[in-house]
Amino acid sequence: VKILLINGNTSDAITASMARVARAVASAGTEVIAVTAEFGARVVSSRSENAIASHAVVTAAAQHHEGCDAVLVAISMDTGRDALRELMPIPAVGMTEAAALVACTLGSRFGVVTLGKRTVPMYEELIAGYGLERRLAGIEAVDIATTGYDETQRIQSGITELAARLIERGAEVIVLAGAAIAGQHRELQADIAVPLLDGITCGVHLAELLVRVGAKKATVGSFSHPGPKALVNVDPSLTKLFGKA
Amino acid sequence: VKILLINGNTSDAITASMARVARAVASAGTEVIAVTAEFGARVVSSRSENAIASHAVVTAAAQHHEGCDAVLVAISMDTGRDALRELMPIPAVGMTEAAALVACTLGSRFGVVTLGKRTVPMYEELIAGYGLERRLAGIEAVDIATTGYDETQRIQSGITELAARLIERGAEVIVLAGAAIAGQHRELQADIAVPLLDGITCGVHLAELLVRVGAKKATVGSFSHPGPKALVNVDPSLTKLFGKA
Amino acid sequence: VKILLINGNTSDAITASMARVARAVASAGTEVIAVTAEFGARVVSSRSENAIASHAVVTAAAQHHEGCDAVLVAISMDTGRDALRELMPIPAVGMTEAAALVACTLGSRFGVVTLGKRTVPMYEELIAGYGLERRLAGIEAVDIATTGYDETQRIQSGITELAARLIERGAEVIVLAGAAIAGQHRELQADIAVPLLDGITCGVHLAELLVRVGAKKATVGSFSHPGPKALVNVDPSLTKLFGKA
Amino acid sequence: VKILLINGNTSDAITASMARVARAVASAGTEVIAVTAEFGARVVSSRSENAIASHAVVTAAAQHHEGCDAVLVAISMDTGRDALRELMPIPAVGMTEAAALVACTLGSRFGVVTLGKRTVPMYEELIAGYGLERRLAGIEAVDIATTGYDETQRIQSGITELAARLIERGAEVIVLAGAAIAGQHRELQADIAVPLLDGITCGVHLAELLVRVGAKKATVGSFSHPGPKALVNVDPSLTKLFGKA
Amino acid sequence: VKILLINGNTSDAITASMARVARAVASAGTEVIAVTAEFGARVVSSRSENAIASHAVVTAAAQHHEGCDAVLVAISMDTGRDALRELMPIPAVGMTEAAALVACTLGSRFGVVTLGKRTVPMYEELIAGYGLERRLAGIEAVDIATTGYDETQRIQSGITELAARLIERGAEVIVLAGAAIAGQHRELQADIAVPLLDGITCGVHLAELLVRVGAKKATVGSFSHPGPKALVNVDPSLTKLFGKA
Amino acid sequence: VKILLINGNTSDAITASMARVARAVASAGTEVIAVTAEFGARVVSSRSENAIASHAVVTAAAQHHEGCDAVLVAISMDTGRDALRELMPIPAVGMTEAAALVACTLGSRFGVVTLGKRTVPMYEELIAGYGLERRLAGIEAVDIATTGYDETQRIQSGITELAARLIERGAEVIVLAGAAIAGQHRELQADIAVPLLDGITCGVHLAELLVRVGAKKATVGSFSHPGPKALVNVDPSLTKLFGKA
Repeated sequence: VKILLINGNTSDAITASMARVARAVASAGTEVIAVTAEFGARVVSSRSENAIASHAVVTAAAQHHEGCDAVLVAISMDTGRDALRELMPIPAVGMTEAAALVACTLGSRFGVVTLGKRTVPMYEELIAGYGLERRLAGIEAVDIATTGYDETQRIQSGITELAARLIERGAEVIVLAGAAIAGQHRELQADIAVPLLDGITCGVHLAELLVRVGAKKATVGSFSHPGPKALVNVDPSLTKLFGKA
Repeated sequence: VKILLINGNTSDAITASMARVARAVASAGTEVIAVTAEFGARVVSSRSENAIASHAVVTAAAQHHEGCDAVLVAISMDTGRDALRELMPIPAVGMTEAAALVACTLGSRFGVVTLGKRTVPMYEELIAGYGLERRLAGIEAVDIATTGYDETQRIQSGITELAARLIERGAEVIVLAGAAIAGQHRELQADIAVPLLDGITCGVHLAELLVRVGAKKATVGSFSHPGPKALVNVDPSLTKLFGKA
Repeated sequence: VKILLINGNTSDAITASMARVARAVASAGTEVIAVTAEFGARVVSSRSENAIASHAVVTAAAQHHEGCDAVLVAISMDTGRDALRELMPIPAVGMTEAAALVACTLGSRFGVVTLGKRTVPMYEELIAGYGLERRLAGIEAVDIATTGYDETQRIQSGITELAARLIERGAEVIVLAGAAIAGQHRELQADIAVPLLDGITCGVHLAELLVRVGAKKATVGSFSHPGPKALVNVDPSLTKLFGKA
Repeated sequence: VKILLINGNTSDAITASMARVARAVASAGTEVIAVTAEFGARVVSSRSENAIASHAVVTAAAQHHEGCDAVLVAISMDTGRDALRELMPIPAVGMTEAAALVACTLGSRFGVVTLGKRTVPMYEELIAGYGLERRLAGIEAVDIATTGYDETQRIQSGITELAARLIERGAEVIVLAGAAIAGQHRELQADIAVPLLDGITCGVHLAELLVRVGAKKATVGSFSHPGPKALVNVDPSLTKLFGKA
Repeated sequence: VKILLINGNTSDAITASMARVARAVASAGTEVIAVTAEFGARVVSSRSENAIASHAVVTAAAQHHEGCDAVLVAISMDTGRDALRELMPIPAVGMTEAAALVACTLGSRFGVVTLGKRTVPMYEELIAGYGLERRLAGIEAVDIATTGYDETQRIQSGITELAARLIERGAEVIVLAGAAIAGQHRELQADIAVPLLDGITCGVHLAELLVRVGAKKATVGSFSHPGPKALVNVDPSLTKLFGKA
Repeated sequence: VKILLINGNTSDAITASMARVARAVASAGTEVIAVTAEFGARVVSSRSENAIASHAVVTAAAQHHEGCDAVLVAISMDTGRDALRELMPIPAVGMTEAAALVACTLGSRFGVVTLGKRTVPMYEELIAGYGLERRLAGIEAVDIATTGYDETQRIQSGITELAARLIERGAEVIVLAGAAIAGQHRELQADIAVPLLDGITCGVHLAELLVRVGAKKATVGSFSHPGPKALVNVDPSLTKLFGKA
């Protein structure tokens, strides 16, 4: 199984860190190809940066998917995931979506802990968009200065504290959302009384699952290929992909 | 009042047609500046084309908003609307959003009629994303070949028939969705027993309303300006707009 | 444009105060005719007073609508609004409805601040009846003695504090609900970090918008005219209006 | 047990017919006092007539409740029920509410069959207002001319046919809604494969149940008595009732 | 009227205590037959114990229903209630369901107070399964050690305090859930400002109501009798009941 | 990985058939242990049979889970799944749950096709209980005589036809529900335009995923072990499992 991991943030360091987590958990025989979006915000944390990233993610997928079996959208807003599902011949999963679906198998309601208070409504809409708001106990964010994500110690104790608050409000599983903190569940789980799920870990395994299940690509409906369309001023790989009706 | 109308489809003909409708209904003293997205699909009708258009719409807004009082997102998926609301110093409304909100003042539930069956789930998600699914009686689409929107006669009788079907299912207002058919409510209303609303007409008036209400820009929350952020390989006007914390 | 503002509270002082706000914000060329309900509670703040006011509002509309272009229901429970929409040949908007719809264009979720804790469930039902509960962050009420609304200072600082609490819980817009405090958003906005919306201001502009949009009156459905009906012991103007099928 | 049955329609014939049904099913020792609203529509079937009836129902309750143990709101929109619950010292139930709650004990989802297509959205809002929309399989109405309810034969076969259609769509119980057809479940049940519930029958028994349960009147919240309030131009019995804090 | 009260907990003391409450409130002429489940947990308070109890409740019903008019499921999770509704020729009500439905006639939203924090999600699912989550203000549980329910004093003051907290959050009625504390509403009501409802009290009266309403048993749908089925290794009374198509 | 497949129907033939499917799709290195419930209905298709099966499933799990890594509940109502999640030290997934969660990664809304019309409300409640009703396009059932499941040809053409009907109504994925037809997606997929998912196939891969993700068992909340409890007259293996706090 060959998984294309696309970081929608234009930060190679975050790509490398997520790739390390992905490779560490992947099943024997799974290869992870990691690429970074070529334009947009270094660290996407707003709606407008996300609007740019959605174009960057589909462009990266068009450029790099040949020979891959599945795409893992490795940006915590799962940016562009629906577009890829429609356009690509292979399955696509989002990292936060993957953790949310796995959470549904482990408890009644799950909580989400992330970084940056202004993203909370964005995650609420993401989870609601998945039709999972009834499974959601709440979302909490460690406050961060927009310029830095590096205060590891303070962030980790913030996550633990917010997880406890969500458990108090009924969360029976915690989803850790954020590309920058992917993989930190390994260190944090010991301090949290319920399962702590990581998007990259769940995403790699869900991508593998989809390859194994081998479901057919829909030939009708909003997830079938859009068919040949006229596009202007986009990357040639995109034009080519749109041409493959 | 100066309204920036942004067509997220890269088709100048559709821009011109929507601008004509907008200018015809605008209040005395309202000026409409119409621009066309510079990259992406000629006529956006899929999730992947929409993912590209969201970048094109924010770029066009960044380039052209100086001196304007409000933005009217003139693409029927309201692409990029949330991003503009956050990033721009002026209000933004989507054409389908505008018609949906006006519909809420005219009946209990509204129906949506559009072109192209594969977009139905996309509109369902759009309306659900606005939290208005309980006001929605249903969505119907006139089937079209992906290559042409020009069979005016067949499309118009299709719209009338689908509107009647939605009325039978409880729709008390009909929203006409689709940039390509903006303004056609004037000809079609006579054959439909309930109010027929057009996104551009409602959008121009809602944009004027927002300018008149003059609400403050939020300084906290997910619709406050994201603050200075590092972006790469984007249009300089976007970089400049992100810099204006 | 001629707007009939109907105060469903039987208090001329409140009518006068709302009319002042309405006239101050109305567009050039808009005239506001303000009338007061002729029977019922001085200040409506319970379900039973509201049940009486619904009759009073439709009676006042029947008596005074001739020559007007739209009705603004100027009582914060939007009492009788649906009845007017059905019975009258002209559009009708409620003041709280207007602010709630405008709020939907400015943020993901809005909060409501009002006076009197016992009305909170009534506002919850009002917003839910509009199908907007998924846009609602919460409702808070400044506690008041039932006999007096005059402690302006205490009320205003209460509003500011409750708005801050709602923002903390995710409100990105605040709707100020209450006929008695209409227009106070002008003084209070400076102390509140997100847009603060006033029902009369939004209602006047939404009434103007509906006149400009000029939607057809439905000829079928629950908002078409009920047709000639036998009524007993009601105001002659109501009998006349029911006779106009 | 003494039950005050209030017909919100100003038709003595309908009152008499509902009273007959009520007395036939009441437990031994239950007395039914039946009164008719003194103003408003002969047969309420629109939002505006309902707005008038809400005042008429609370007035009738204020005039006639002395010595009674519970109120049965005998108009199929349950008009004024919430107001009575708040204002009166005794419990109040609506006839459609009663049938809907009993339906919840007999099947997963229930259907509603009524008369007059234009009332369907009104019943949808009524059921949604009770928070029971997830238990609702659908609402169907026999079409009637607004001037007559007397074609018994055609109406009864219409009800049977629509009930079958709702059963096909998942209804496991049918609620028969409409003051004019109260009690007809006795003749119709044989032709319907699931339980058919009548608002007056369920309402009398639910009123008896509430008297027997003997729950305390709330002293806080939106269903506590509103306290002494200033009202003008209303029936003296209402003024008196508002005075009884 | 003869009511079969089935305690799904295998504790005779709790059966006796609930039977006392049931007999104290039953109408003249109502007889209560009380039986205890023959296998499973002494006091059911988890999902796995509930899974066992569902079998025990249907077995007890099969063994003891002859000659009875209705079943009252006297275990606070209403275990097996849906199964009985389908399989038995007589109506069945759950004690918590009964209190929840009565609560719906007394206020907008109700709160639930119970024992044992780990059961809170189970009650949330129970209420949601009844389609009543929009009527729910919240659920709170007095914390208990798993080994003892006997600290009456501490539990009662806990209930009063949690009820007050729920009232603060909008509860206008309180449902007291838990077989072990059935009937304690009589002592606790004085300290709680809104109606306090008890499952056994409401359940006995709702069972009586269903007998009086006398609804037909469905002959189609998921609550009709399942028809003759092959079962192995179950109680002969169950086999017999399944045979009675 | 060692997966314990528990058939909640007491039919060895169905167990064998599901085990064959499971083994055919399992990853290299995955072993499937298949067991059959020891009491209850041969083929569970009603609420009362399901109530018995929940006890049978937890008993079978208690008897056979030693040495296994995950449980696959192989009965299409996912009977007992929540109980196992709480009581067992290893993860548990239901076959219909597994297909529903995988469906969420492949389309906006999914449809369910099953056998036997009376089970449709039961599946609706199952999906709603998973909080996934917003992802559900509809449920359709091939009608069957209760005595036979053997008309393979008629059932398969029925499934294909109902799938097409659900696609028409917006389903973008079809879940095939029913233990008796597990694995038939392989033959049927060719005739269905969207992905067709099978519970056993998805369940085996989801069980494998959960083992690989290796999430911690919750130590608090409703899915932590219930702790030592007193039970009577149950299988010794159950008593032992409850003792393992």
